[in-house]
Amino acid sequence: MNGAETLADTLLASGVTVCFANPGTSEMHFVSALDARPEMRCILCLFEGGVTGAADGYFRMSGQVAATLLHLAPGFANGIANLHNARKAGSGVMNVMGDHASYHLRHETPLKGDTEAMSRTVSHWTRKTADAGSVAQDGAAAVRAARSANGQIATLILPADAAWGEAAEAVVAAAPPVLPRPTAAQVAAAAEALKVPGAVLFLDGPVLRPEHAIWAARVQKATGCRLMTQYFAARIPRGEGALRLQRLSYRIDDAMADLKGVPELVLLGATRPAGFFAYPGKPSLSEDPSSRVTELCTPEMDGVWTLQALAAELGAAALEVTDADLQPHMRSSLPAGPITPAAIGQSVAALMPAGTVVVDEAITASAPLAAATEKARAHDWLNVTGGAIGFGLPVAVGAAVACPDRRVLALQADGSAMYTLQSFWTMAREELDVTVVILANRGYQILRLEMLNLGLPPAGGNARRMVDVAGPELDWVALAKGHGVEAIRVTDMDAFNAALEAGLGRKGPYLIEAVL
Amino acid sequence: MNGAETLADTLLASGVTVCFANPGTSEMHFVSALDARPEMRCILCLFEGGVTGAADGYFRMSGQVAATLLHLAPGFANGIANLHNARKAGSGVMNVMGDHASYHLRHETPLKGDTEAMSRTVSHWTRKTADAGSVAQDGAAAVRAARSANGQIATLILPADAAWGEAAEAVVAAAPPVLPRPTAAQVAAAAEALKVPGAVLFLDGPVLRPEHAIWAARVQKATGCRLMTQYFAARIPRGEGALRLQRLSYRIDDAMADLKGVPELVLLGATRPAGFFAYPGKPSLSEDPSSRVTELCTPEMDGVWTLQALAAELGAAALEVTDADLQPHMRSSLPAGPITPAAIGQSVAALMPAGTVVVDEAITASAPLAAATEKARAHDWLNVTGGAIGFGLPVAVGAAVACPDRRVLALQADGSAMYTLQSFWTMAREELDVTVVILANRGYQILRLEMLNLGLPPAGGNARRMVDVAGPELDWVALAKGHGVEAIRVTDMDAFNAALEAGLGRKGPYLIEAVL
Repeated sequence: MNGAETLADTLLASGVTVCFANPGTSEMHFVSALDARPEMRCILCLFEGGVTGAADGYFRMSGQVAATLLHLAPGFANGIANLHNARKAGSGVMNVMGDHASYHLRHETPLKGDTEAMSRTVSHWTRKTADAGSVAQDGAAAVRAARSANGQIATLILPADAAWGEAAEAVVAAAPPVLPRPTAAQVAAAAEALKVPGAVLFLDGPVLRPEHAIWAARVQKATGCRLMTQYFAARIPRGEGALRLQRLSYRIDDAMADLKGVPELVLLGATRPAGFFAYPGKPSLSEDPSSRVTELCTPEMDGVWTLQALAAELGAAALEVTDADLQPHMRSSLPAGPITPAAIGQSVAALMPAGTVVVDEAITASAPLAAATEKARAHDWLNVTGGAIGFGLPVAVGAAVACPDRRVLALQADGSAMYTLQSFWTMAREELDVTVVILANRGYQILRLEMLNLGLPPAGGNARRMVDVAGPELDWVALAKGHGVEAIRVTDMDAFNAALEAGLGRKGPYLIEAVL
Repeated sequence: MNGAETLADTLLASGVTVCFANPGTSEMHFVSALDARPEMRCILCLFEGGVTGAADGYFRMSGQVAATLLHLAPGFANGIANLHNARKAGSGVMNVMGDHASYHLRHETPLKGDTEAMSRTVSHWTRKTADAGSVAQDGAAAVRAARSANGQIATLILPADAAWGEAAEAVVAAAPPVLPRPTAAQVAAAAEALKVPGAVLFLDGPVLRPEHAIWAARVQKATGCRLMTQYFAARIPRGEGALRLQRLSYRIDDAMADLKGVPELVLLGATRPAGFFAYPGKPSLSEDPSSRVTELCTPEMDGVWTLQALAAELGAAALEVTDADLQPHMRSSLPAGPITPAAIGQSVAALMPAGTVVVDEAITASAPLAAATEKARAHDWLNVTGGAIGFGLPVAVGAAVACPDRRVLALQADGSAMYTLQSFWTMAREELDVTVVILANRGYQILRLEMLNLGLPPAGGNARRMVDVAGPELDWVALAKGHGVEAIRVTDMDAFNAALEAGLGRKGPYLIEAVL
């Protein structure tokens, strides 16, 4: 048995059964090992950003770590942007990066690069395995690291000679991670803080998963506190039966208004809310300077235990939660007229089935889409946690692999979609039930707005040529068809409604280019 | 004047007049500064790998450093793969990467990342500018670094507050770099070595540019030595009137045969030739162990001076070089029948005009294409120096911007083209005279071959699903049209010949999907 084979067996023994892959020559022994193990589902993506984003989406919806298979140095580098998003999402991902045989690295060769430094730019855990005999232990350690702290980026670098070298048949199952918890005194103090009128319990991470919602609802009911989360929380269950959870606003001025006068701000699984960017003359943090901030449980700690302990401390561990405590469903009618983000949101609210996974990379159109769907049927809403655009289509792939019985709806800005459009092909090959809506405004709308916000309106041609994606316009129907995905272009809401209904009802992927 | 404005003026004062760009929010003040300076040609690419590859192609053909404009952290990361290729090509590139305002970095925000560590994975020179008053000096230092050592990767990190802060009107022109040279004794010793029968002068870097070819030809004529270069040299002038220059073979066994029995191997601008990858039981270096290797001039030194000094030492500084010493032109006829790489090469040899810039990312098809065109009309041949695929289309963009009067012909494998297909859009917008030939074999052919070479033929489904890009097949005509580029699919050589002739004769980009 060679090192690559022990790694494949170790992954399977540790419960890792999906591998998103874009391999290169130095990974051929691992590809061969996977070839002999059909229990591992190998999913090819035609660009590494598609690989890493898919692993992120898979974790967000399944809670399970997937493996990725990436080529050395520049291959891994192409996956960094979506690993950055996964890191900010708290997603666990276990990367296998190839490398040259150890003795080959002393020479100057085309693909030689600093694989460890590249990994460390984005990974919480990096290890270059020393030899074939170490691969199984290191592989198990990598899986454990990916599962630690509620989800981390772990990268195992596998030199070619460690992959092809002879190893003992040592297969190691990853040990489960241990999550630190706050003390009973800290929980008690937080419980007191939440009883203060106007207090906010600010949640993020695994506590937001639907199976834990009842605990937050009990704390809310027992204390009367407001429940809030980050604007870019990784996954927010919404619609019928979801928590009444307020998302912090995106713009710093609005976020400051959201938190104005809050006496007690208790953070559970969330970092201190800060502005996406800094702006001249404005603060970085959105909290009210008069607020008392309690960091009860950091994102790396055991949030679910902490939330349950909080409910117990409040005597609310068995408190009944009724429909009236949760989000109601309000029927939407189908809008007519010209296509706008708000009208698309209304159409989505009317048509999407219960259980839909919405992947939101609509950027400037996100706020009206979210507003229109707040009381739709039950759904999950996935956000671009790290601000690295090109997240939406790959995450939709991973979410669809994780949830084969649910519909995935990718609400996708056109500029952002271009970074990882290769994901269309994987949707087609794997016959994933993904409906993609391209909101085609023919430009980087957020840059247009930011220039105006900053008092820098374009005057010459250079700025317009850097923010407009026109001359020529992208033809999204052709781009989808080129990757094997059927598509339609619509220019009014009647046509959009019909296309969305058709798309949501069919097997496999479908793209709608909605011209704004 | 703010920091961003002093940077734009510094670039222009230093002779940097092209900026390939994919900006984000934190770079808006620099975008605004460029907007007010129409002397800077700003070229938008819809993905950062397109930006950095274009800067590489621009340098290879113009010898001039272009600026790039990239968004912080993950934005830069998307550009690393083609910066890796540029680094291995010895191309000078000056990156401007945005970053958060310095005081914003103490907070956890979506886009926060280790910008300096990301830069250092691939840049020779990295500096994060301290404040607005330092931007001009730092910008000039970055341009100088990019021009040093015959071409380097230099990255200036520009925090938002350094861009928007007030600066003195300090505009700084970059100082010219100084290149180290070998000693006269080293030149004399190398000249003696080259007189030994069977000696090889192994060239790479700026000495290969067509304007310096006469010096290598004189040394060859004076000594009778063989002239060789790396298989993946950045730019090789070929065809009529070019040096008789042998490229080292790609496969390690063939490369060892190329260098077998060479008594004296003199390296001038080249690193010691090593195999692309290591293979079990094979050596890393391709040189004959009995060869005496002289590292006369490293890639960072003054190769052109060294080559001229070598000619002078040999008394050949004025030696006449005639057509008979150089590559002749042999007419090719147009091939008929099924499409093969060799037939495409023959068609290219027959049809491409003098001065064509060939960008070769044909991977497994490269060798027959190169063989068929060796005695075609004069042309340049650009290679994927760093092995990071997705180099071809962006480099074609940059070469076309550098050489508006020449035709660019991108010979492109299908799997590789998918990494940076967004470059089609920039070709269309800038109306670049690029003819793209997609050699569509519906898979990662090199991985299929490598698995067989290693004795690992696919047996289960997983390996085939990771090396075949089929089910569905990519439709390159649709992909091109989606980006605004006209295209045609051909399935026999008669149709290919007609399409190539039409493509080479028209203004603007054109794509031919050649089905193998």
